[in-house]
Amino acid sequence: MNGAQALLRTLLDSGVDVCFANPGTSEMHFVAALDDVPEMRGVLGLFEGVVTGAADGYARMAGRPAATLLHLGPGLGNGLANLHNARRARTPMVNVVGDHALGHKALDAPLESDIDAVAGSVSGWVRRSESVAALASDAAEAVGATRSGAGVATLILPADIAWTEGARPAVPAAVSPAPSVEDSIIDSVATVLAACGPTTALLVGGSVLVPNGADALERIQAATGAKTLHETFPARMTRGAGRFEPDRLAYLGEMAMDQLAGIDHLVLVGAAVPVAFFAYPDKPGRLVPDGCTVHILANPGADALGAIEELASRVAGDAEPTTPAIVSPQRPSGPLDVMTAAAAVAATLPEHAIVSDEAATSGLFMLGATKHAPEHDWLSLTGGAIGQGMPVATGAAIACPDRPVLNLQADGSAMYTIQSLWTQAREQLNVTTLLCNNGAYAILAMELDRVGADAGGPIALSMLDLGRPDLDFCQLAEGQGVPAVRVTTADDLCTELERAYREPGPHLIEAMFRPQR
Amino acid sequence: MNGAQALLRTLLDSGVDVCFANPGTSEMHFVAALDDVPEMRGVLGLFEGVVTGAADGYARMAGRPAATLLHLGPGLGNGLANLHNARRARTPMVNVVGDHALGHKALDAPLESDIDAVAGSVSGWVRRSESVAALASDAAEAVGATRSGAGVATLILPADIAWTEGARPAVPAAVSPAPSVEDSIIDSVATVLAACGPTTALLVGGSVLVPNGADALERIQAATGAKTLHETFPARMTRGAGRFEPDRLAYLGEMAMDQLAGIDHLVLVGAAVPVAFFAYPDKPGRLVPDGCTVHILANPGADALGAIEELASRVAGDAEPTTPAIVSPQRPSGPLDVMTAAAAVAATLPEHAIVSDEAATSGLFMLGATKHAPEHDWLSLTGGAIGQGMPVATGAAIACPDRPVLNLQADGSAMYTIQSLWTQAREQLNVTTLLCNNGAYAILAMELDRVGADAGGPIALSMLDLGRPDLDFCQLAEGQGVPAVRVTTADDLCTELERAYREPGPHLIEAMFRPQR
Repeated sequence: MNGAQALLRTLLDSGVDVCFANPGTSEMHFVAALDDVPEMRGVLGLFEGVVTGAADGYARMAGRPAATLLHLGPGLGNGLANLHNARRARTPMVNVVGDHALGHKALDAPLESDIDAVAGSVSGWVRRSESVAALASDAAEAVGATRSGAGVATLILPADIAWTEGARPAVPAAVSPAPSVEDSIIDSVATVLAACGPTTALLVGGSVLVPNGADALERIQAATGAKTLHETFPARMTRGAGRFEPDRLAYLGEMAMDQLAGIDHLVLVGAAVPVAFFAYPDKPGRLVPDGCTVHILANPGADALGAIEELASRVAGDAEPTTPAIVSPQRPSGPLDVMTAAAAVAATLPEHAIVSDEAATSGLFMLGATKHAPEHDWLSLTGGAIGQGMPVATGAAIACPDRPVLNLQADGSAMYTIQSLWTQAREQLNVTTLLCNNGAYAILAMELDRVGADAGGPIALSMLDLGRPDLDFCQLAEGQGVPAVRVTTADDLCTELERAYREPGPHLIEAMFRPQR
Repeated sequence: MNGAQALLRTLLDSGVDVCFANPGTSEMHFVAALDDVPEMRGVLGLFEGVVTGAADGYARMAGRPAATLLHLGPGLGNGLANLHNARRARTPMVNVVGDHALGHKALDAPLESDIDAVAGSVSGWVRRSESVAALASDAAEAVGATRSGAGVATLILPADIAWTEGARPAVPAAVSPAPSVEDSIIDSVATVLAACGPTTALLVGGSVLVPNGADALERIQAATGAKTLHETFPARMTRGAGRFEPDRLAYLGEMAMDQLAGIDHLVLVGAAVPVAFFAYPDKPGRLVPDGCTVHILANPGADALGAIEELASRVAGDAEPTTPAIVSPQRPSGPLDVMTAAAAVAATLPEHAIVSDEAATSGLFMLGATKHAPEHDWLSLTGGAIGQGMPVATGAAIACPDRPVLNLQADGSAMYTIQSLWTQAREQLNVTTLLCNNGAYAILAMELDRVGADAGGPIALSMLDLGRPDLDFCQLAEGQGVPAVRVTTADDLCTELERAYREPGPHLIEAMFRPQR
């Protein structure tokens, strides 16, 4: 058994059975070994940003890591933006980055580069395997680390370590559960809530945004008058059916500050201190009001769900949450815009759908509109690096083949990882892409105003405009084997969404938005 | 004047008047300033790999740097693979990477990441501007460094430095010419050639591959019997018209070793010691024969052209080179394959064309076939990171608007930066893309054999196969505003190439190659 075979066997024994791959020459033994370990599913991506984003989407839904296979430093670079998003999502993932054989590195061959430096910028665990004896245990440790909260684990695999014989699989490494929150911390937050409930806000992270967490938050809010908010871009929310849901902390800093105005105590529950996405002239970056005390109930990575349930039992006794209720929203009609498109999504969303949301400005009302839709999961752009929506949808569909996946996708960000569609077609994934075509980087036009730049010149505006020529996403989809249709009305959008959910395999619906100004 | 305005003015004064850009919020003041400095041409790319590759192609043809504008760490990451290629090409380029405002960095906002570490992996010069007073001089220094041989220069631009008023442009920095080679070194190489000419080989880099260099090499070879070879992937070669041309050092190590067999003295002329692209079991990585002495006439970055001309004058006196001769190759006919496609390219190539070559296995015979075509420039994949061909063609066309650009493009590598086509359409660039569609990562199928992997299993082969579904590059082009046509015969390829050269603006010709096995 060579190193690659032992590596694949170890990954599999450790619970990793999907590998998203874009290999090159230095990874050929790994590729060849896929036939020896057929339980490992290899999924080809035509670009590494698809590969890393798909691994992120997979793990968010499967609850366990996938592997990626990347080709040296440039392959890692191409995957870096979505690794950044995965790092922010705290997603478990094992990157296998092929490298030159150990003896070849000193020769400075054309593809030689500093993989370690680049990998270190996104990984909580990095190691270069330097012997075939250590490779399998390195792999086991990588899986153990990423499943124990280390975030992205990157294993650098020299080609000769992959091809050398005499390797043996390693036993899986132990996995540490998320650390529990101490009773004394829960007590002290309970005391704050008892004394100052109405001027307290709880800001919760994605790990709390599941039905049990929502129930606990609802009870706490009812019993104490505390405000509840969730972080702007949670990795995953299980929601819908009208279940209680904290308000989203607004993306725009000034709106977030309005939400937090009058709050004396901010309790963080698996969320970070709220800060503005970007700095702006004369606006604060830290969004905590002056004089407000910050209390950490659970750091991101700790057992925030356990903590909030325990907190609820202390401050809200055994009060019952309200029963969620599915409300069928009315089907919209007329031209498409941010309101009618959101209504169309809400009116048609199937039960147990998975929504990958990268709709940017076009999706402004979609989260709100779907609160009463049947229960579903919602995946957000955690790290702000656009080009995640389509790959995450791809990976989520691999993780949950029996669930419909809806990718709410802005046009500008779609162009970063448009190659995702090919993988969706090859694997015949049940992904429906709702491509919101407004012909612009609309969010940047807004930001150009917001940063106070002396804006509006024709050259600047041309840099935010996706016209000249207009993109035709139907052709871009069909050129990659994904059937596509263009719609201009909300009525047609409803019809086409329902058709896409009904028919197996991927579909793209290009929704032509009415110009907003 | 704010920092961004002073930065743009300084770049312009330093000879940089094109900026390839994919901006985000933190770069909005730079974007706004484009209206204040309208002599700077902003060229939008929909993906950062297009931006960085275009800047590389631009500089290779213009002989001076362009700027790029990239959005924080993830934007830099998306551009990293083509920055790697630019580093290997020794291309001058100034990356401006926007970053959070200085005071915002400590807040660990979602897009915060270690830009410096990633930039360092591809840049010969990196600086973060920390005051508005220093920004313009930092920019001047960046241009000076990149024009003095430092390779890629990366200037990290915090948003608040861009927006702060009170900035002033800086005077351009001095540019150091490539260092001359000392007489004593030229003498010693002349001595080797005089004594051992027939067992000496000169390996030359791209800087020598211009008409004067070719003439000098021809005279040296005629006078001394020395063998002449050029590095496998020169950044740029000016060639054609049947002018003397050294043989290309083969991509495959075993073929390169055959070329160097029997050589006792290897003289490096602006080229590095030859090494294999990849390591393979039981094959050497360093390609210099045992017992062969390596002499460095000129390091990469030194004035290799001056040195080779001086060397010629010493060992070959004033012998005349032969007169180059254009030979019109016969127009091929019949089905398309690597031979007939190369013949079609050679039979139709216009004078002063620029060829961006990323045809991989499909282009095996294209370099040889065009030796007698009219004079043209040939740009290669310097760093081995695929996804360069289309962006380099894009940038070359911006640099040389009056010259036809031919992009010889493999299908697999096209999918990494397919967004280039949109920029070609927006800027109405005279780029003809010859998309060689063989439906596979054919080079990897070859490499799977070569690495000795126990290959051929159906799973491994499926990872190298671009079918299921087949890509339709005509739709991918037309969806981005580039007219496209599919051809299956050499006759039609000739006709369509000529039509594309004749009609202004971009074109894509999808050449369906006959299966090779």
